[in-house]
Amino acid sequence: MAYKLLKNEGTARRGEFETVHGTVQTPAFMNVGTAAAIKGGISSYDLVDLKCQVELCNTYHLHLRPGDDLIYDMGGLHKFMGWKGPILTDSGGFQVFSLAKLRTIKEEGVYFSSHIDGKKIFMGPEQSMQIQSNLASTIAMAFDECIENPATREYTVSSIARTTRWLVRCKREMQRLNSLESTINRNQLLFGINQGSTFHDLRIQHMIDIAELDLDGYAIGGLAVGDTAEEMYGVIEAIEPYMPKNKIRYLMGVGTPVNIIEAVHRGVDLFDCVMPSRNARHGHLFTWSGIRNLINEKYARDDAPLDEQCDCPCCRNHSRAYLRHLFKANEMLAMRLAVQHNLYFYNTLMEKIRAALDDGTFEQFRAQMVPILGKRI
Amino acid sequence: MAYKLLKNEGTARRGEFETVHGTVQTPAFMNVGTAAAIKGGISSYDLVDLKCQVELCNTYHLHLRPGDDLIYDMGGLHKFMGWKGPILTDSGGFQVFSLAKLRTIKEEGVYFSSHIDGKKIFMGPEQSMQIQSNLASTIAMAFDECIENPATREYTVSSIARTTRWLVRCKREMQRLNSLESTINRNQLLFGINQGSTFHDLRIQHMIDIAELDLDGYAIGGLAVGDTAEEMYGVIEAIEPYMPKNKIRYLMGVGTPVNIIEAVHRGVDLFDCVMPSRNARHGHLFTWSGIRNLINEKYARDDAPLDEQCDCPCCRNHSRAYLRHLFKANEMLAMRLAVQHNLYFYNTLMEKIRAALDDGTFEQFRAQMVPILGKRI
Repeated sequence: MAYKLLKNEGTARRGEFETVHGTVQTPAFMNVGTAAAIKGGISSYDLVDLKCQVELCNTYHLHLRPGDDLIYDMGGLHKFMGWKGPILTDSGGFQVFSLAKLRTIKEEGVYFSSHIDGKKIFMGPEQSMQIQSNLASTIAMAFDECIENPATREYTVSSIARTTRWLVRCKREMQRLNSLESTINRNQLLFGINQGSTFHDLRIQHMIDIAELDLDGYAIGGLAVGDTAEEMYGVIEAIEPYMPKNKIRYLMGVGTPVNIIEAVHRGVDLFDCVMPSRNARHGHLFTWSGIRNLINEKYARDDAPLDEQCDCPCCRNHSRAYLRHLFKANEMLAMRLAVQHNLYFYNTLMEKIRAALDDGTFEQFRAQMVPILGKRI
Repeated sequence: MAYKLLKNEGTARRGEFETVHGTVQTPAFMNVGTAAAIKGGISSYDLVDLKCQVELCNTYHLHLRPGDDLIYDMGGLHKFMGWKGPILTDSGGFQVFSLAKLRTIKEEGVYFSSHIDGKKIFMGPEQSMQIQSNLASTIAMAFDECIENPATREYTVSSIARTTRWLVRCKREMQRLNSLESTINRNQLLFGINQGSTFHDLRIQHMIDIAELDLDGYAIGGLAVGDTAEEMYGVIEAIEPYMPKNKIRYLMGVGTPVNIIEAVHRGVDLFDCVMPSRNARHGHLFTWSGIRNLINEKYARDDAPLDEQCDCPCCRNHSRAYLRHLFKANEMLAMRLAVQHNLYFYNTLMEKIRAALDDGTFEQFRAQMVPILGKRI
């Protein structure tokens, strides 16, 4: 179980990440199935056709509903939702800090109320590891505090110190859980998360501290939460030299196609974001010529496929006019076709990035694509 | 283009109905794609896998949104929604009477306000034929008044007399439209609709009157709109001897699996109903052992497929526990999987009915299935 760096182009990396549920070709984009399903009526079986390599599920949501004990009883997430490839679960931390009500952070963990029914819940590093072990994901994320930007230096210093202490507890608890006979996936991997807001020196010191724990991968958290794209790129550039070369690197919750290309350029291997599915549900579709708002009147009688250069299930079979009609008529099929397209687009983007890295033409690809992909057409 | 009676078992009929868009094996159930899409995120391409033979679309809904002129410009419904098989369009009459506001019925047609934006619209026999010709469906339905039950004898007498006069106008207008070079489907078929509330003598006289017009098929309308199942069966039995033997017979808007078996027994060939998709969206699933309410707590940890005897995409891949979770978490995937299952169930029911008729064992099938299929389990 390890990351293998196949090739560099500048700081950009072409690699492979081996897991018990299959090998991931990197750079890769994880498709977000929050509550054990992709929003928009996409099943795990559809995901295979959409060239998805890794599905991401949310610990917080699944803990509340249907409960990780139920998923454990059903044999774990893979069996429950019918996905055979790698699954990454987040730690629950991000949702505890963004969704839950009445939260109190203490050294032992976080006390909060469920956003569904107000039920009082405690989650600390050990609980997060136990839940993720019950879910039996391929990769578990460490329980951290995701600091919103901007943040004060003082708060950031104390927060990341606690996040490091929590990480030590996460590692210890996962080792214990992976040693139990009753654990479904005893090869569960643990990724640590770098925090530190936009303070480069704090980010670097935190990265050095967590690298010492020799985890299975390292994530950059706390970006794309109030900061600008330039601040984000700056943080990645600052910490990259301190990230272990032989470990996979995951930029959490990012981002647009351009953000992804720019982050690959700066040495990132793994991504996740709700953007492709969320934007799709509002009629915003990514294409190889730029971003289309399909609700626009000009598509009402447009017989062309959404993207002539795409061979996703939507573009192979349906016209812009039909898809627009489905959106206007509030048909669920609009959501499904649009989400299929956007996920296929993101997964194909990663395929093209990998091919360019293989060919040593990634910088050319970046120069060509960045001006196009962010453009509204 | 004709109905061919292959075999009788009592009054029940096994037949074939030839159209320019393919031959329909009857008895058959039409799958309802109201606004040119099946509710629940099912595309025309999915319908093929669900063993659908005929898709039904709604004239009223499509006239309002996106407009039949737009669908005409896009080459007709087949091309617009990507369905290659036969399509039946209703006349719009039923929705004008049930959905539209401020309606006034006159000899020339109906004045009403759109239920979407209040826009004033007029629809008479000629307009309905023109809209359906623009949609370019395989089969157009005559514009009639669907009388709600119970109705007075006096109102029924005057209403069906007008419906007959409207039918003559529908036939004349369709002949004109089918003769135009600019018409997309110049082989469009026209079905007349029998009305007469629950008055057997009025139903019979109306059937005799409309049979004289020698149309491509005959529908029984105005049932399952306030009447009991026994009243419905009584009406079918009364008029069946007066329905042309060499024409296809369609019972509109019916019904449960048991209703369908009982109507086939009484000589009906064609059905449509929103029940399989609507019930699916509320977690009510038809199975070969009876009707399951999947929201029930007892399915929370049930690892079995929804129906062990079913090989639909839902039952092949997913457990009751997973499907229930998707419903509880309000995931769109719940709708899609459940609608897929229920449509597959209905289409398979028709397949079994046809096989039993082929084997001369339909009455045995009916005796065995009727007590099971209506049962809640």
